[in-house]
Order: sequence, then structure tokens, then C-alpha cells
Amino acid sequence: MTTSNVNRQITLAARPIGEPKETDFKLVETPIPELGTDQFLVKNLYLSVDPYMRGRMNDRKSYAQPVQIGEVMGGGAVGRIVKTNTRKFRVGEIVMGYFGWQTYAVSNGDGVERVNPELAPISTSIGVLGMPGMTAYFGLLEICKPRAGETVVVSGASGAVGELVGQIAKIKRCRVVGIAGSDDKVEHVVKDLGFDAAFNYKTTNDYVTKLRELCPRGIDIYFDNVGGAITDAVMTLINPRARISLCGQISQYNAAEPEMGPRQLGLLIERQAKMEGFLVFQFAEKMRVAQKKMADWIRTGKLKYRESIVKGIEHTPAAFIGMLRGENIGKQLVQLADE
Amino acid sequence: MTTSNVNRQITLAARPIGEPKETDFKLVETPIPELGTDQFLVKNLYLSVDPYMRGRMNDRKSYAQPVQIGEVMGGGAVGRIVKTNTRKFRVGEIVMGYFGWQTYAVSNGDGVERVNPELAPISTSIGVLGMPGMTAYFGLLEICKPRAGETVVVSGASGAVGELVGQIAKIKRCRVVGIAGSDDKVEHVVKDLGFDAAFNYKTTNDYVTKLRELCPRGIDIYFDNVGGAITDAVMTLINPRARISLCGQISQYNAAEPEMGPRQLGLLIERQAKMEGFLVFQFAEKMRVAQKKMADWIRTGKLKYRESIVKGIEHTPAAFIGMLRGENIGKQLVQLADE
Repeated sequence: MTTSNVNRQITLAARPIGEPKETDFKLVETPIPELGTDQFLVKNLYLSVDPYMRGRMNDRKSYAQPVQIGEVMGGGAVGRIVKTNTRKFRVGEIVMGYFGWQTYAVSNGDGVERVNPELAPISTSIGVLGMPGMTAYFGLLEICKPRAGETVVVSGASGAVGELVGQIAKIKRCRVVGIAGSDDKVEHVVKDLGFDAAFNYKTTNDYVTKLRELCPRGIDIYFDNVGGAITDAVMTLINPRARISLCGQISQYNAAEPEMGPRQLGLLIERQAKMEGFLVFQFAEKMRVAQKKMADWIRTGKLKYRESIVKGIEHTPAAFIGMLRGENIGKQLVQLADE
Repeated sequence: MTTSNVNRQITLAARPIGEPKETDFKLVETPIPELGTDQFLVKNLYLSVDPYMRGRMNDRKSYAQPVQIGEVMGGGAVGRIVKTNTRKFRVGEIVMGYFGWQTYAVSNGDGVERVNPELAPISTSIGVLGMPGMTAYFGLLEICKPRAGETVVVSGASGAVGELVGQIAKIKRCRVVGIAGSDDKVEHVVKDLGFDAAFNYKTTNDYVTKLRELCPRGIDIYFDNVGGAITDAVMTLINPRARISLCGQISQYNAAEPEMGPRQLGLLIERQAKMEGFLVFQFAEKMRVAQKKMADWIRTGKLKYRESIVKGIEHTPAAFIGMLRGENIGKQLVQLADE
């Protein structure tokens, strides 16, 4: 194995108990595999780290199979094709796929999308124009159907999804209130992204009082990225016919057993409210249209996005752990090589 | 005051703490009021007692104002007009309205519906063709949109709403599993009403194992009348794209503070499931069509209903308390006078 044929990979070394530690992962070097028929080799340029990956580290089937111990961590990435055995993909093309936490990946093209580097920075294919962007778009517009003048609350407001949800809600002329975990994040979503208001839940004792102050006409739509006590508080203030989009429950992902919380289904009845969980791939058919719309909004300055980028595959576990702790603003990426 | 002009009323004497007691209510006798312009007097024949009334006894505004201490308990009733000051309603007509727990009620006709006693027994106007029937119809068909072959679980399966939900689901060719609180109820819903299976939660230790056995293809639809631990168990077995209709949470109605339970919003995400609370009046516009449909099903023997009837207004509190405890099968009514 020479440096030119080394694949650097992050494998799952142990199933995390509670919050993942760096020792739950292992950096290994393996030879880049030979290509089979109809396969190509991608050199990954950017990896995505996302909250859903925490679930894949547990030994429990969810909507996808768990990652096995010793296996390379899965995840979306964008890279350049450096070798090909198929006519469908050419060397030099930029492609996005579920390539995993590794510097090189072999693919047969299933689930792979071509990325046009002239339309937008290629990192956006795993950010604002990729899974997180589509999650924000469909989770807000399809699940909640916002109407002008309604009040929208977004938890995880400065994360990869939340920052977009709030801005899309503003485009739809809603009042938008964000909940985030630092004063910097609060300032960012209000000053840079145009949210009407936001608060730092880590320095706020009484979420209900604060929400009542910031949502004087109650809450029509809640886009939930976090769950737990923040969601409990929001629920008490929902208006009749409220819509709640369940996107993530990051506050619960490290829990070994379900946390206990107040039962609130009676509230849903009395407010005739809807709560709906979703996974972005259920909207696959509408993805192209949504990407175009999002790209238009970016071009016309209506939609901003932010990326937190660390360099080097060896920093992927730390980037993932930091993202779970909320240390990032916007989309957390790991850059593996220069474009 | 002579016996001929006495109105016998049940008032709220004290706000119940936990389970209501008979002493929380008081039977009072007052003179039948004089009629104002455009009013009429109804002699109530049947009163309805329903789970939602427990909420009205608390000093907390929900979707409706609470009943005040000393006030007559509200509730649906059907009766005969015995005196009138309006051309819109004639003496002798049978009418249904929110007439309250009393032998006579004065009304100006708001929210009152004429009942045709030749089409169906008049008691059905506050049962299978009234609020409970419409609740079952819309809560299942509009919120859950059942498809043939899907598995539907109904809690409170032998109650006024549950017994209808299960039968409508059978008409829609679903597999129907009921959860009820006695062996008699279980036998009733399976043998008399055609549910595919049912179990007695009071004699079942492990709801999840029992549900897994009775729902081998998982649960596509859950119609929830009870909440609490039964709902927790159902939730763990819902299929992708499940729909949960939240109709009632009777297990929680006597709780002064929200009970704690396991957080399950993550399940809704991973199963892409929807949970929706509703109040029957949101479907007011479609009510006529639904009543006709239900009446057709009754006429053709596809839909059966059962009534538990006690006689005498003085037994209304006991009937209400018994209904909350699940002592009734089908719709609990109080008959005040012969038709």
C-alpha cells in the first residue's frame, strides 16, 4: 500500500453509550478497492455529518439498518470521479451520494446524483440543496402549509435545517421565532437571517413565558428539530388547527431508554392539532422542483445559508460530536480535499 | 311552584378532584322559566353523558368555557317541544340540542336540529346519528383514510364511539382489533360487531406482546379514545405512514397534573406517522351526508349500535361517573320521560 492507493476511513469502533466519544470511532487505512464492472471511484471532497447518524450507531433497526462495528460510517458526501468502469459516469464529474466517512468510495451509481459545479458551490449539494435543504423545504411547506401572518416556531433554529425553515417561513410571510442554544446563534438568526425573534434556551428559565412574549398570537406552526422540554413548552401555546412538523429530536438521541415527559395528546385534541413525522426521501418525486426553487431563492438573496467546515477526515468524529452538542452554526461539513 | 311547573336540574356543586363523586353534583328544582320572544320550551326525553364533560368541570378554558359552580351541567339532549313563542318551531316537534342536564330547557333554536322520529329511534340523535356517531365517522374516515387490508386498532372499543369506529373500519375491509376493559366487552365487539380480534386490557399484562400477536402485519391506523399506557404500547407497533386519530384520552381526564409517559415523538419521525386531534364540529359542513350514510348502514344491517339507558334525571351523575369508569357498553343515555 502506497500513499497513492490508501483509502482513509472512519469506522464505528464501539456502539456509543449516551453521548458519542472519539474513541467510539477509529481511523483506518485500507487499500482503495479495485473497480468491478459498471463501477466508478469517487474521491470525496466534502462529507456531511448529520444528527440522524446517531441513530444508525445503535444496534436497533430504525428506518435503516444500523452500522455494524468495524464498518465504515455511512453518510452523504460529494466528490469527484477519479476512475470509472462504466459509460454512465465520466472521470472528472462531480457526484453526490451516500459515500460514507472515507476519502474514496466505490459506487455503481445507485442513488448517486450529478452535481453541476457551475450552478452553486458543490458543498451545497449536501447542504442547502441537498438533504438538509430538502428537509427544511418539505417539512415546512408540505407538512405545515404555512399561510401569511401565521406564527412559526423553529427549534434548532441555527442548525442546517432550522436556519432554512425560518427563512422559508419568512418568504411565506409568517412571523418566525427561533429557539437556539447560544447568544451568537440568536443574533445570527435574527440579524443575518431575518427571523422576527429568537431566544437562547440555555439562558432562559421559563420557556413558556418567553414564548408567550415572543408569540403574542400563539403558535400556528412548530418545526421541531429537538424535542424534549422545549417541545413541551411550545405545545402548551399551540393555536387551534396548529401543525407540528417532526423533523428531529436531537435532545433525545443519546438516551438509552425513552425519556419521560408530560403526556400532551389531550392538547392535540383540544386544539385540533396535527403532529407529523417525516423522512425527506418520501418527497423524492418533488425534489427537482424544490431544488430549483431553493436555488432561485439563494440567487435572489432571499435565502442565506451558512456552513461550518473542518478540514481532514481525522476530524470527522469530533465534528459529528460537536454538531450533536450544537457547536456548529449552519451546516456542519468536513472537507477532505481541495476542490 | 307546583309539580307541573318544576324544572329538575343537575348543577355542578363542586369541581371534582380526580374521579368525580356524586356529591360534586346537586339535584335542584326551579320553576320552568317564562319564554321570551322567539323562544321555545323543550321537555327533554334523553340526555347524553359523554367523556368530554369531565373537562368542562375543571376551572380551565379548553375549546369551550368551563361550567361554573352552581350552573346546570351542559350536554346534548333530545326532547319534545311543549310550548313555543316562535313560528320556527312548533309544539310536538322533536329537537336535539345542547339542552343540558335538566328536565326542561328554553331555547331560541341556535344549534338545534329537528329530529325525524320516523327515520330512526329519537335516542340515536344523540348517539349513533349524533355527536358520537359523527365522531367515529369523521375521526376514522377523514383523519385516517383507511384502505382495505390495513390494520386498525381502536381503544375504548366498546364505547359509544369505539364500537362504531371498528364497524366502519370493517365496512372499509380493514382488519380491526379492539381494546376494551372487560371480557364481556371483548366478546361483544368480536361476536356481535364483527371485530377480528380484541383483548381485555385489565387482564393483559403485556400490551405490546398481545398487540403483536393480534396485529401480525403491524398497525396502520390507531383510533385513540383512551391515551396513557395503552397508547404507549400501540405506538411501538405502528407501521410506516401510520395515521393516529386522537379522539379522547379518557385515562387522563381525572388527572390534576399531566401524567408522565415515555417520549415517543422520535417514533413518529422514524415511521413517518401522523397524529391528529380533532373535534367533531370541525366537520359540521359534511354532517348531513355522514348521517345519511350511517343511517343507510344501520338500515342494511352493516352497522349496529348499543345503548345503555338509565331512567330518571337523579341518576345522571351516577351514569356519568359509571361511563368514565367504563361500566357502560355502547352509548350511555339517561331517559327522563317516556317518548
